[in-house]
Amino acid sequence: RTDSDRLWAALMEMATLGATAKGGVNRQALTELDRQGRDLFIQWCRAEGCTIRIDNIGNIFARREGSDTNAKTVMAGSHLDSQPTGGKYDGCFGVLAGLEVIRTLNEHRITTKAPIEVVAWTNEEGCRFPPCMMGSGVFTGELEFDAMMARKDADGVSVSDALDAIHYRGSDEVSPSEIKAYFEPHIEQGPILEDTDTTIGVVIGALGQKWFDLTLTGLEAHAGPTPMHLRRDAMMGAAEVTQALNRIANEHQPHGRGTVGYMALHPGSRNVIPGQVKMTLDMRHWEPDALTAMGDAVAAAIEEICQRHGLTYELTPTADFAPEYFDKACVEAVRQGAEKLELSHMDIISGAGHDAIFIGRVAPAAMIFIPCKDGISHNEAESATPSDVHAGCNVLLHAMLEAAGT
Amino acid sequence: RTDSDRLWAALMEMATLGATAKGGVNRQALTELDRQGRDLFIQWCRAEGCTIRIDNIGNIFARREGSDTNAKTVMAGSHLDSQPTGGKYDGCFGVLAGLEVIRTLNEHRITTKAPIEVVAWTNEEGCRFPPCMMGSGVFTGELEFDAMMARKDADGVSVSDALDAIHYRGSDEVSPSEIKAYFEPHIEQGPILEDTDTTIGVVIGALGQKWFDLTLTGLEAHAGPTPMHLRRDAMMGAAEVTQALNRIANEHQPHGRGTVGYMALHPGSRNVIPGQVKMTLDMRHWEPDALTAMGDAVAAAIEEICQRHGLTYELTPTADFAPEYFDKACVEAVRQGAEKLELSHMDIISGAGHDAIFIGRVAPAAMIFIPCKDGISHNEAESATPSDVHAGCNVLLHAMLEAAGT
Ligand SMILES: NC(=O)NCCC(=O)O
Ligand SMILES: NC(=O)NCCC(=O)O
Repeated sequence: RTDSDRLWAALMEMATLGATAKGGVNRQALTELDRQGRDLFIQWCRAEGCTIRIDNIGNIFARREGSDTNAKTVMAGSHLDSQPTGGKYDGCFGVLAGLEVIRTLNEHRITTKAPIEVVAWTNEEGCRFPPCMMGSGVFTGELEFDAMMARKDADGVSVSDALDAIHYRGSDEVSPSEIKAYFEPHIEQGPILEDTDTTIGVVIGALGQKWFDLTLTGLEAHAGPTPMHLRRDAMMGAAEVTQALNRIANEHQPHGRGTVGYMALHPGSRNVIPGQVKMTLDMRHWEPDALTAMGDAVAAAIEEICQRHGLTYELTPTADFAPEYFDKACVEAVRQGAEKLELSHMDIISGAGHDAIFIGRVAPAAMIFIPCKDGISHNEAESATPSDVHAGCNVLLHAMLEAAGT
Repeated sequence: RTDSDRLWAALMEMATLGATAKGGVNRQALTELDRQGRDLFIQWCRAEGCTIRIDNIGNIFARREGSDTNAKTVMAGSHLDSQPTGGKYDGCFGVLAGLEVIRTLNEHRITTKAPIEVVAWTNEEGCRFPPCMMGSGVFTGELEFDAMMARKDADGVSVSDALDAIHYRGSDEVSPSEIKAYFEPHIEQGPILEDTDTTIGVVIGALGQKWFDLTLTGLEAHAGPTPMHLRRDAMMGAAEVTQALNRIANEHQPHGRGTVGYMALHPGSRNVIPGQVKMTLDMRHWEPDALTAMGDAVAAAIEEICQRHGLTYELTPTADFAPEYFDKACVEAVRQGAEKLELSHMDIISGAGHDAIFIGRVAPAAMIFIPCKDGISHNEAESATPSDVHAGCNVLLHAMLEAAGT
């Protein structure tokens, strides 16, 4: 069993770096605070006798050797960077649970066959430097190194410069082919475990995602003198597209999701009919065919709505991720861990993107979810209980031991 | 007949003050440019032998005496201030058409029984200092003088200070009881005259208006991990309210109008379900009962929508104007003018607020509309033809002569 208090203490100490007044964390990728978090993590790992490798995008790998010198590594990890108004658990829980596994193995003088490695991926959040999951994306070849190095934050600072400024541009070459299995513990960031009173989510994969930018253009006109039948009201189009996206997501249950999170009206004056609306569409589904069908249905709805309201439109894809189905053996190792520990558990699908999704494309991977209060994350109010954190870490220990052998 | 070229030249000269690169005008209320416009107008009026009065809110009255010293005055006017990206005609057309009537009477040495007066109301647009129609509102007692004096622009400058800075705080006492009839020529600011190929709109009144601010509050949550049935998506509420407002306006045709011109999503991130949406509702109708019914129907729809989506809401009225029915005799004078001049004309209802609406509450009033290109105003692209401008001015001449007597 892992040490509940030790893990909790590590989480709380890490959370002091960038602590916000409202009890959250602001420790964005490649900032001075991120450097402090990385330094602390490395210091803790070195104290456990780990060797440290840092790759060209700043991903940190802390290694505990196994008895079989030919064996591939069993890895656990997540990320240490946070949203600007983030919480204490999103990311840190996965990294520090991995550290706690190593501490536990050391404490009980357990030697695994395969080496154990804990990884902290660079810039998972993507809020300072888009896109998200940058470190794991470069590591797996899903994102192009040079292009990522050139990405700039709002102040014009590049990833390359920020990486140098905190001295985390490494030269160690770490290859996905070294990975035997990758496990990522994470808070669910959704309400399902809490809603069903379940401690462990056995994550069998992740929803595919299709993101679009949509611009609807009509005719800006005075709200008073313009009769309803002579309008080309872009906001009417935006309202109907929002409803269509929702209806289509509801028609593709239980896995469909449809969200309009951003909308900007031009000119945005209370007595002017909007001539233009810019909005975003976020669609997700578990089955590739259903995700394609949702995208097609939304595109057809936009066409019909725009024709009816005399609008023109521009629909631009901004992200397109296939659903990820995690490795059956890794998933089973998580499930067995929960079983042995007699923890309530359920199979669950991640609705959000995670580093594990990129890793899963090049190596066997799975995730372990624990509940978070009200399903809230990316929010200073993010909260998880010590007992759930402990349970998730113990499941990780079991899964890693199963994969690494003793 | 009025002089088409002279009126057009006056309009174009006035439009040089605050001329924008895109062919529009930026001459906002109580600015240095507004002062120049006012000075030019007064200079032109003095050259025609008019006496000038300026009241405590800076409204300018230019008077040409009549033969009957006991008679009340027949007034024409509108406003000289513009929107920040306004056009050449909105407001100026009405004031300068009034001036052109005086020039024509002088040219033909016609003495009217009643005195003729041309008025330029202060701050009709309300864009620098809300609300709109400030000068006519104070003049008629619809708006409170002290409260208006204290209104500040975005830089913190008060109406009182701005009025002093351009030396247009007057001490002349002008009373609504002096008015025999008030006529306001204006561009339609809508598409109806153009759509029906009509030159003159005989304005029989104006739609009543109900404005609201609406805040919908749900629960901010991650767009991926949150299933559709566990959401409290404020944007879904906003989309349905937008559609309900539209449907209700369409159920109250031909006079109903419903517009959502402003909407702000919180946090406004593409992969976050909006926890809060702030939006505006603009409803208009010709019949008081129908306007009340629209307001009630929208309020009921909001209640039902919010209940269904698990949202709370706050609905705050921000404006409530009764419909205005113009004086029958004034309207008939406009209609007869168009008839005599053999101009195509139709009865029309103003969808927008105008100074004439406040004046109509305390004295006989009517308006004369001419077409504007594509129904567009509050836009640098605002456009009207010399022939329509001339036609509108001639109808004003006839209506004023009818009301003033010769
Ligand atoms: N885990 C997480 O918040 N990922 C962000 C990308 C997404 O919207 O799924
Ligand atoms: N004429 C005009 O644009 N008035 C503004 C107030 C309104 O929206 O009716």
